[in-house]
Amino acid sequence: MRNLLLTLRYDGTDFHGWQVQPNGDSIQQRLTEAFRSVSGKSENIIGCSRTDAGVHANMFCCNVRTDCNIPAEKIPGALNFYLPNTISVYGCDEVGFDFHARYNAKGKEYVYLIYNGKYRNPFYENKALFYPYKLNAEEMNKDAKDFIGVHDFSAFCSADSDIQDKVREIYDCKVEREGDLIKITVSGNGFLYNMVRIIVGTLISVQSGKIESGTVPEVIESRDRKNAGVTVESCGLYLNKVFY
Amino acid sequence: MRNLLLTLRYDGTDFHGWQVQPNGDSIQQRLTEAFRSVSGKSENIIGCSRTDAGVHANMFCCNVRTDCNIPAEKIPGALNFYLPNTISVYGCDEVGFDFHARYNAKGKEYVYLIYNGKYRNPFYENKALFYPYKLNAEEMNKDAKDFIGVHDFSAFCSADSDIQDKVREIYDCKVEREGDLIKITVSGNGFLYNMVRIIVGTLISVQSGKIESGTVPEVIESRDRKNAGVTVESCGLYLNKVFY
Repeated sequence: MRNLLLTLRYDGTDFHGWQVQPNGDSIQQRLTEAFRSVSGKSENIIGCSRTDAGVHANMFCCNVRTDCNIPAEKIPGALNFYLPNTISVYGCDEVGFDFHARYNAKGKEYVYLIYNGKYRNPFYENKALFYPYKLNAEEMNKDAKDFIGVHDFSAFCSADSDIQDKVREIYDCKVEREGDLIKITVSGNGFLYNMVRIIVGTLISVQSGKIESGTVPEVIESRDRKNAGVTVESCGLYLNKVFY
Repeated sequence: MRNLLLTLRYDGTDFHGWQVQPNGDSIQQRLTEAFRSVSGKSENIIGCSRTDAGVHANMFCCNVRTDCNIPAEKIPGALNFYLPNTISVYGCDEVGFDFHARYNAKGKEYVYLIYNGKYRNPFYENKALFYPYKLNAEEMNKDAKDFIGVHDFSAFCSADSDIQDKVREIYDCKVEREGDLIKITVSGNGFLYNMVRIIVGTLISVQSGKIESGTVPEVIESRDRKNAGVTVESCGLYLNKVFY
């Protein structure tokens, strides 16, 4: 028996997220089927996190315990042969048998893209939020710094979540502009349901004047979801790195 | 009567090129229909060039002579309302009545993208040529310089073309690498059918050893299509600028 750590990239547009769904296409299901075609074995593939429908990944990690004995370096190409072109495995490493893609993750980094041009850009369709009103990335970056640190992020968690402990540490949160593209990078030890999308929605709400500039610490402190901004679309969100 | 210069961007994946086709969706047809919906008038829209099926544009120019009197600055948004999200008009300027998008073009710039990673990248699917073998961008850039100048480009023209005069001037031709992406930029006063795609195919053939390094001037000189490289896929090609 071996434990394989697989690293992949996917365009989440056509999927109902990572996790196998009773009614809907998922990355986990496609990968499980591809692994069965390659190895002849039905194995449980453990993902580093769930991602929502439409969310993308530049780096998603998962592990699978198997007695398949194909050399690790041949596995990505073999899996990609069976996967749709929207999913690409680019790493396979043998890891200790105890390694668990979710429990061993020390943290993650997400990127959120906003296309901030005046008119839609076809090349960012389903790849970034289209937001045509003026955004000042330098101001947003200043507000973003208020998320850094250990906080109770109850105000930045979907009401659908039943998780009790809502304290998380954000390592960094920054906003950069490259032409018409705004890139928001958030890293931390863990994320609540929809947390990055609500953080981005809040930074936009400060720009549009719905939330007063400089009051992000108060919004956090309130622990009230109603004080934060909207949950922005999933299409702009990318799981970018997983730290082990 | 006014003459309007429209500037647009499109993802060509789902289209049979710019020009109206009897059987197939085209950008010209979609734009003509959108213009009719906005202005109530059926007008002939003149494009700066044809682009092939699957070719994209960051900047495509076309003009339309019309007595529609909607202010120019309102036209892009109005057209985009009727266009699919794969086409986006971002400029509309009133120009002199004699202006003709094709005849007045002094030159064009094309970009060709190659995704040169080991495994497919879902985010470049239909947006770049996937080429997983080693490419040295510095060496390619050196060979690219041999295309600059006034040459008879018969060796770099599809056999399907019946154009007689195959002399064109290439202003610049350069190759750059950004991570796994290779970007080839070619500008010139005019381009023969498939010319950029054959230039790129030739630069790749030099890398793979099928064409000897340093012999691009001889391939040009031969005026024989058989001595140049293959015509690479349309999906990596972008019309990037039109010079007037």
